[in-house]
Amino acid sequence: MSTTLLSGKPLAALFQQEVQEQVRSLGVDGVRPVVAVVMATADESTHWYVRSIERAAERTGVGCRIIDLGHDATEPVLAGVLRDLSAEPSVNGIILQTPLPPGVRTDSLVGLIAPEKDIDGANPLSLGRLAVGQPAFAPATARSVVEILEHYRIPLAGKGVVVVGRSAIVGKPLSLLLLARDAAVTVCHSRSGPLARYTKDADVVVVAAGRAGLLGGSDVSSRTVVVDVGTNVLPDGSLVGDVDEATVTGTAAALTPVPGGVGSVTTALLLLHTVEAARRQRSSPPPASEALEPQVLEAAG
Amino acid sequence: MSTTLLSGKPLAALFQQEVQEQVRSLGVDGVRPVVAVVMATADESTHWYVRSIERAAERTGVGCRIIDLGHDATEPVLAGVLRDLSAEPSVNGIILQTPLPPGVRTDSLVGLIAPEKDIDGANPLSLGRLAVGQPAFAPATARSVVEILEHYRIPLAGKGVVVVGRSAIVGKPLSLLLLARDAAVTVCHSRSGPLARYTKDADVVVVAAGRAGLLGGSDVSSRTVVVDVGTNVLPDGSLVGDVDEATVTGTAAALTPVPGGVGSVTTALLLLHTVEAARRQRSSPPPASEALEPQVLEAAG
Repeated sequence: MSTTLLSGKPLAALFQQEVQEQVRSLGVDGVRPVVAVVMATADESTHWYVRSIERAAERTGVGCRIIDLGHDATEPVLAGVLRDLSAEPSVNGIILQTPLPPGVRTDSLVGLIAPEKDIDGANPLSLGRLAVGQPAFAPATARSVVEILEHYRIPLAGKGVVVVGRSAIVGKPLSLLLLARDAAVTVCHSRSGPLARYTKDADVVVVAAGRAGLLGGSDVSSRTVVVDVGTNVLPDGSLVGDVDEATVTGTAAALTPVPGGVGSVTTALLLLHTVEAARRQRSSPPPASEALEPQVLEAAG
Repeated sequence: MSTTLLSGKPLAALFQQEVQEQVRSLGVDGVRPVVAVVMATADESTHWYVRSIERAAERTGVGCRIIDLGHDATEPVLAGVLRDLSAEPSVNGIILQTPLPPGVRTDSLVGLIAPEKDIDGANPLSLGRLAVGQPAFAPATARSVVEILEHYRIPLAGKGVVVVGRSAIVGKPLSLLLLARDAAVTVCHSRSGPLARYTKDADVVVVAAGRAGLLGGSDVSSRTVVVDVGTNVLPDGSLVGDVDEATVTGTAAALTPVPGGVGSVTTALLLLHTVEAARRQRSSPPPASEALEPQVLEAAG
């Protein structure tokens, strides 16, 4: 069986082109979309990743502000920066880059990102809005998976799709996006037992567990399309996904490579979300009722 | 095969008892938990349901305010009432009862319910918080399903659970609750094709689709535990679930009845959520940073 390789690169190029066009069109009206990336780590691969966002932004004409608060930044400082950026009219998109310093509660910080600027779907409100079908940005990685499948015309409606991994940034939002496309969606994870029970009969399997070699050839069938979201750095410095390529290649119908698959689309989508945010914020500022009221909590009793 | 009937009534009685005890304990400190039910319909079965909440509240000592705005209430009026109740310290829980008048956007109204008082998990922020593991109330019906399964010691960790129905008030929040209990969760729906593909091999099947007779005996196996969330009123006025009882009884391992199953637990849980809300609002008013900041959206550009 020959396994088709589903590269993310042609799609990434299309999205970059779309971003460039929208940047030009917004520029006519004197608007320049800007994304802000907040980071607080000495981790080298994170610095490398943030620089790759910066370079992609430069290529497409999106403004990019890197706010590096250093590896010892405190939670109040991070919170203050996120509040300021949420209130700053010249910033359209905000990314809070992990990892954060030990002890900092990422959970409460992401709630400070204004939903309209939450271009990587980190605020729980974005996830909730996604679930009920209200406008919201999905995490770019989750959207990448769906975009790749649609780009290669893999049918989703009425199909059985298995997502391996239940994280708030990939597994859960992805399952919502797939449900909205009429798939039957199964979410498996580290404690749900042998994968094959669910993956063997699936039409599409998406692996987003962060464990090299997790999905093997015996877990899939010849009609399974496999999307590999994993990015694991091996001791020798090489990058591999969650799929055991050696055995899945030759067994599955199709497979996204790592690198060059989902990851290559994600950065382009972050920029596309930024220009979409810029357009929305320009054309329809949130009505005061929606923006303020749900949030004015009262301490009762 | 004899199918065990999993009645909700013993569990409902336990929850009522717990509510009564907590009401007494709060009363020692001069606090009386209060739930407010906002309604705007002439629909008789809705009036009947709201009266049943009122009676259950009376029995357990929870205060209950019915705010009936009439079948021609407008969206601004409903919004104003929800804002007032969210800000009113003597109200601990808020239920926005559907159906609402035609043209009223339920979606934007539920966002006005303060998350701390959102005891039926209607605000998308509650769903988002549930997804990321932050404190939030699940819709009472979704929690009822999990409580019944746990009451009867049906194992969930490592099991395959199929949820039929993808609504924001049952299917989606329920799938989050089940994932948090380490089940592998499949969500099917009206467009996912024949149910048997997913339900036949499942350990637990929860049907919440609102279609009488949807799940039949041929869709399940002798080890399947079936939970019926459906409440369909037949032309003769009788109440049936989504399960074809005639064929599932005798085939499945266990089944919750309708009426007397999930529904009988739901009202008790609404009251339990109300006393939980009263205790939380009393002991830990939300810090200003969390309560106000994430919500102060700015219209950019």
